[in-house]
Amino acid sequence: MKMLEDRIREEGRILPGPVLKVSSFLNHQIDPDLMMELGKEIAARFSADSVTKILTIESSGIAIALAAGAAMHVPVLFAKKHRSSNVSGDLYQTVVHSYTHGTDYTVVVEREYLSADDRVLLVDDFLANGKAIEGLLALIHQAGADAVGAGIAIEKGFQEGGKLLRENGLRVESLAVVEKMDDSGIAFRAD
Amino acid sequence: MKMLEDRIREEGRILPGPVLKVSSFLNHQIDPDLMMELGKEIAARFSADSVTKILTIESSGIAIALAAGAAMHVPVLFAKKHRSSNVSGDLYQTVVHSYTHGTDYTVVVEREYLSADDRVLLVDDFLANGKAIEGLLALIHQAGADAVGAGIAIEKGFQEGGKLLRENGLRVESLAVVEKMDDSGIAFRAD
Repeated sequence: MKMLEDRIREEGRILPGPVLKVSSFLNHQIDPDLMMELGKEIAARFSADSVTKILTIESSGIAIALAAGAAMHVPVLFAKKHRSSNVSGDLYQTVVHSYTHGTDYTVVVEREYLSADDRVLLVDDFLANGKAIEGLLALIHQAGADAVGAGIAIEKGFQEGGKLLRENGLRVESLAVVEKMDDSGIAFRAD
Repeated sequence: MKMLEDRIREEGRILPGPVLKVSSFLNHQIDPDLMMELGKEIAARFSADSVTKILTIESSGIAIALAAGAAMHVPVLFAKKHRSSNVSGDLYQTVVHSYTHGTDYTVVVEREYLSADDRVLLVDDFLANGKAIEGLLALIHQAGADAVGAGIAIEKGFQEGGKLLRENGLRVESLAVVEKMDDSGIAFRAD
């Protein structure tokens, strides 16, 4: 998606890791007009899939998930990263490893919001090693729901997450796929 | 706001605390159509205030802040609850006490996204004791920015946060103010 690639080129910064820092418009400060456009694009790509629910993971997935949900008019559910006293009742839960933070964390959703009747679209801001999406797929599996695919803002194409998920049969639609990023700049995968 | 009050009456559940559980449409599962309407209403109430930035706190403030930002076409900044390795550079930071979780946490925003030129609208899903909003006000103060007010989805009017903030001169606009909630039901403050 050219609008997103242009913005990444203009404002993205490459930090050691390598981390692509897009905090000026995507996941710390958010450009709401851009974000709503990303949501519309995800909605368009999955318009034929009878999606009944969007599932994401806090915190930085919430904005793009809401944008997609507003375009598709389906409920948005965000998995929480630890058991909060505001969450009661039965939960689906799984453990996700975060390479960014070097820790494991538990993600939970309340059972009443995910059922075997749901056709779930996964949405997140980034896809790198795919561990967050794998965790969400585990929650969907526990619920007996169907995963229709994943809509991602930025995929790091040089990490294995997107490849592994696609090999396992998940449809992954990434609005921008970074193939390479280094001192010479950022190269995107052609559509 | 009648649309929100109706939804709280229909789906809100009162848990010990008392906690008003609205996880079916506001802060775990989100009804995106309702959320965008809440954002429009906040935008309308602050339309004359030359807002340049919306500030909220992760995680459950992000959705309503994005909805307000989409209606106002101003950037949305969410304070993060701990220092993440994705956050680099200089930070504004303060400590907030969470009564819900019984712990203190640090909230941070990157300095480059908040400046003395900003006219900041605070947005959050809930206002109870006001500690989260006070924390955000501390960040705004550190930046030398102006706080034009706070737009809140649900205020617990029987807790002191809204009263204290208003006594300190902050304009607080809450879309639904719960005056009382118990076994007999939920009573809202009249507009």
